[in-house]
Amino acid sequence: MHYELYYWPGIQGRGEFIRLALEEAGADYADMARSNTGMTTMMEFLEGERTLHPPFAPPFLKAGEQVIAQTANILLFLGPKLALAPQDEAARLWTHQLQLTIADLVGEAHDTHHPIAGGLYYREQKPEALRRAADFTEARLPKFLDYFESVIGRNPHGDTWMTGDALTYADLSMFQVIEGLRYAFPRTMKNLERVYPRLVALHDRVAARKKIKAYLNSKRRLPFSNDDVFRHYKELDVV
Amino acid sequence: MHYELYYWPGIQGRGEFIRLALEEAGADYADMARSNTGMTTMMEFLEGERTLHPPFAPPFLKAGEQVIAQTANILLFLGPKLALAPQDEAARLWTHQLQLTIADLVGEAHDTHHPIAGGLYYREQKPEALRRAADFTEARLPKFLDYFESVIGRNPHGDTWMTGDALTYADLSMFQVIEGLRYAFPRTMKNLERVYPRLVALHDRVAARKKIKAYLNSKRRLPFSNDDVFRHYKELDVV
Repeated sequence: MHYELYYWPGIQGRGEFIRLALEEAGADYADMARSNTGMTTMMEFLEGERTLHPPFAPPFLKAGEQVIAQTANILLFLGPKLALAPQDEAARLWTHQLQLTIADLVGEAHDTHHPIAGGLYYREQKPEALRRAADFTEARLPKFLDYFESVIGRNPHGDTWMTGDALTYADLSMFQVIEGLRYAFPRTMKNLERVYPRLVALHDRVAARKKIKAYLNSKRRLPFSNDDVFRHYKELDVV
Repeated sequence: MHYELYYWPGIQGRGEFIRLALEEAGADYADMARSNTGMTTMMEFLEGERTLHPPFAPPFLKAGEQVIAQTANILLFLGPKLALAPQDEAARLWTHQLQLTIADLVGEAHDTHHPIAGGLYYREQKPEALRRAADFTEARLPKFLDYFESVIGRNPHGDTWMTGDALTYADLSMFQVIEGLRYAFPRTMKNLERVYPRLVALHDRVAARKKIKAYLNSKRRLPFSNDDVFRHYKELDVV
């Protein structure tokens, strides 16, 4: 199967969770928004009246005639096809549940720099961002990381992966979240990571995988930036 | 199958999306947090080390030995069992995609009164709430409602339901969102609803269903309140 991934050009964003899955699996895919006509096609899907199942927002994936949106939903679809999800139905739901909780964390990380409106610049909501980021680094982020650390710790197959005895898309996404958090909040993460050895080991295990390593060293991997979901503003990274 | 629903007592919250599905299907379920020992049991699931698949937060559902969290994930699980999801795999993913987009809208509606931190009171973040609510009612809410109105409009089976030719859990959730928005933003909604006839008709169609009607008139349906996800503060309801 050939896959077409549609996402905003120039950033990792939520598209990166899909890219990592496609790259790890060595899937045949095109990153459409990077092509000359990709953005036009993407906007047609978003604004056109012809799409049967219109996406509310990117990323979305085209697989044959099927158009699928919502990051976690795309991974739910791709997981079994790319051998990045467990076979068992209950375990698949659990993997999806982890992905949805990762999505919640990503949303909260985004809102540290955009607590008022996505349509405004950061500088237009900086006082609010300072307050929200302080709560995020102090309360919310440790709560999420405690949770994910304990999830790895209670995996009955050992503490190698988040679930089961093999890598899933949730592990790839967890890697990306740690990368993003390190970029956005380097001081906070340096401080926090000491108490999350399993998450750090999981991150390193994903980074060392042959295909992921090749991807991260390729031009296909876009750099982090302050146009992205994870942004580094020194004043928001308060320990 | 007997289901146990775990959620904070006294509010509709995100648990309501699950309750509506269980009620419409006439399912055998217990709303655990309303029982004497329910809260204790719920906290054991959230804080205990014994749960194999621990929820990050309520609501969660116990079905036999399976514990499932994340509202949309619970509905993904329940949908086929309660005959509230399409048979076809692609249509099920589409229904789930709609549910995830509804969840995004619910999250944004919540953040109008809590833009800084869930751990602070509304009065401690009121200036920020005024700014965020203005953006929500002006920009975000119409964008979401435009989208859902167009989804109903392009359903090839006619504009009765959001997808297919039968009621799904996404329709029940859409009903609940409109109820919640009317409670929280009565002036805004009065103004907006004129341009969303399909959403209003869908809402009424759900409200008129025999089992839903009985549920809404029962004591099991908790009232809306300002301890809930949808809250009414007059100053946030600006047209």
